[in-house]
Amino acid sequence: MSGLAPTAAPLHRLALNQITTPAWSLREAVQACARRGVHGIGVWRDKLAECGLRDAAALLRDHGMWVPSLCKAGDLATLERLQPGQALSDALQAIEEAAEIGAATVVFVNGGVGNPGADIASVREQVAEFLHSVEPAARQAGITVGIEPFHPMHAAERGCINTLAQAHALCERTGPAARVVLDVFHTWWDPDLARYLAPPYLERTACVQLCDWRLPTRHPVTDRAMPREGVANVDHIVGQLEANGWRGAYEIEIFSTDWWGRPPEDVLDTCIRRFTELPVRA
Amino acid sequence: MSGLAPTAAPLHRLALNQITTPAWSLREAVQACARRGVHGIGVWRDKLAECGLRDAAALLRDHGMWVPSLCKAGDLATLERLQPGQALSDALQAIEEAAEIGAATVVFVNGGVGNPGADIASVREQVAEFLHSVEPAARQAGITVGIEPFHPMHAAERGCINTLAQAHALCERTGPAARVVLDVFHTWWDPDLARYLAPPYLERTACVQLCDWRLPTRHPVTDRAMPREGVANVDHIVGQLEANGWRGAYEIEIFSTDWWGRPPEDVLDTCIRRFTELPVRA
Repeated sequence: MSGLAPTAAPLHRLALNQITTPAWSLREAVQACARRGVHGIGVWRDKLAECGLRDAAALLRDHGMWVPSLCKAGDLATLERLQPGQALSDALQAIEEAAEIGAATVVFVNGGVGNPGADIASVREQVAEFLHSVEPAARQAGITVGIEPFHPMHAAERGCINTLAQAHALCERTGPAARVVLDVFHTWWDPDLARYLAPPYLERTACVQLCDWRLPTRHPVTDRAMPREGVANVDHIVGQLEANGWRGAYEIEIFSTDWWGRPPEDVLDTCIRRFTELPVRA
Repeated sequence: MSGLAPTAAPLHRLALNQITTPAWSLREAVQACARRGVHGIGVWRDKLAECGLRDAAALLRDHGMWVPSLCKAGDLATLERLQPGQALSDALQAIEEAAEIGAATVVFVNGGVGNPGADIASVREQVAEFLHSVEPAARQAGITVGIEPFHPMHAAERGCINTLAQAHALCERTGPAARVVLDVFHTWWDPDLARYLAPPYLERTACVQLCDWRLPTRHPVTDRAMPREGVANVDHIVGQLEANGWRGAYEIEIFSTDWWGRPPEDVLDTCIRRFTELPVRA
């Protein structure tokens, strides 16, 4: 094989996160992926409900799909404020759904601070207690509790766990079924990023979600760029992960009104093209 | 004095940061503050240039004003990329201006990552080397090098130093004339905030800039709220600072198209009212 160009990033490590192509039903997304040799898909629960749990399980099985993540359980702090107990019942249901479709991880949205006067430290403590209470059910079902640090600009409204150090500490505290979901959008700026792209933290990482940081970013949620089209230096991040022994999944997850306005077939093709340019090993 | 209501926050610890009332010239801002018994003002260099350095120094002296900060020097990484040496000459000029008007601190904008492909760790190193090279001139002039951590949503475009831990480490490295500028907008979410609101870090803090985090925040730069009108829990932050012995300055600094659209007299009155509601000691 010497003399050949380096192998392009192997598709067997790529998953399309469904939020990247929201115009597609689960069936359409699965079929489009499978046609292109992409057999990983990050599933969203609204799409799963639309398809029906049993049909979805058969669909995924029939197309030989693997599911790194099911998005998302709760918005913990907010749900708890609105209706006590709702976050827990929602989380338990998500775990059941994940088990039914063979998803590895349920991604937990940790929730924002919410109302004026709330103390962020107290809300974080509330999230930690909640995740710890959910973990045994996940462990029993063989499902990972995915703890995703959110970009600090989301601390008020979406997620109050904001750094990889916080997420890994929370992961330890939650229990053996917990892992961190590492999303480039949320973490590329993190001063401790390099540390968490290496052992022993890789073993505590559920999956890696790829996109890029658009310059300028015109909306805090829906203006993500494709990998290699922003300033997050995704090549460098993936290169470090691979050199440090990461052999797990990469999801491409693009929240973007720009990309959502394009034909999903083209979006998926672009995801695949960008992924194959990354320094991912076979 | 027992039986009386607690003393309202004392105006002698309050400074108006000029960006809060950009419609005013330096002269107008100084006169409006002095009329209300506010004798602190955070000065911006464009307003200073407009007034003229010598006239500004006389104006400030004649009104008995103190100046906690002069904003801002450089956008280090960007300036260096555009024109080598420009960041240094700009910084040295800012230090001279600060000395001329008796400002305590020059606030350094550390600069964003900028172009695609840039590595954030390298840009941070570049910023550290730059600040270290500037420090002797500041020390000789009796001016503080103000190191301001920027919210991580600004890492690409404005400031790549994003946590209080980073800023304090950089402060140590920069030299004895360096101090951290603690802005509530940039740091309210910081997981280590409580640690840096206490000794020994208070002695390495130049000043505290107040505003609040609006929910929702509709623009990353220009949608700040008045203290006590958002979710950053400014009461709690100020309470901790005061309990831990902080007796330095508070600036109110509101980048906000909303507030900029109102009569500056009203804006200043609101700043004063909000400030007096905070648990600041005499």
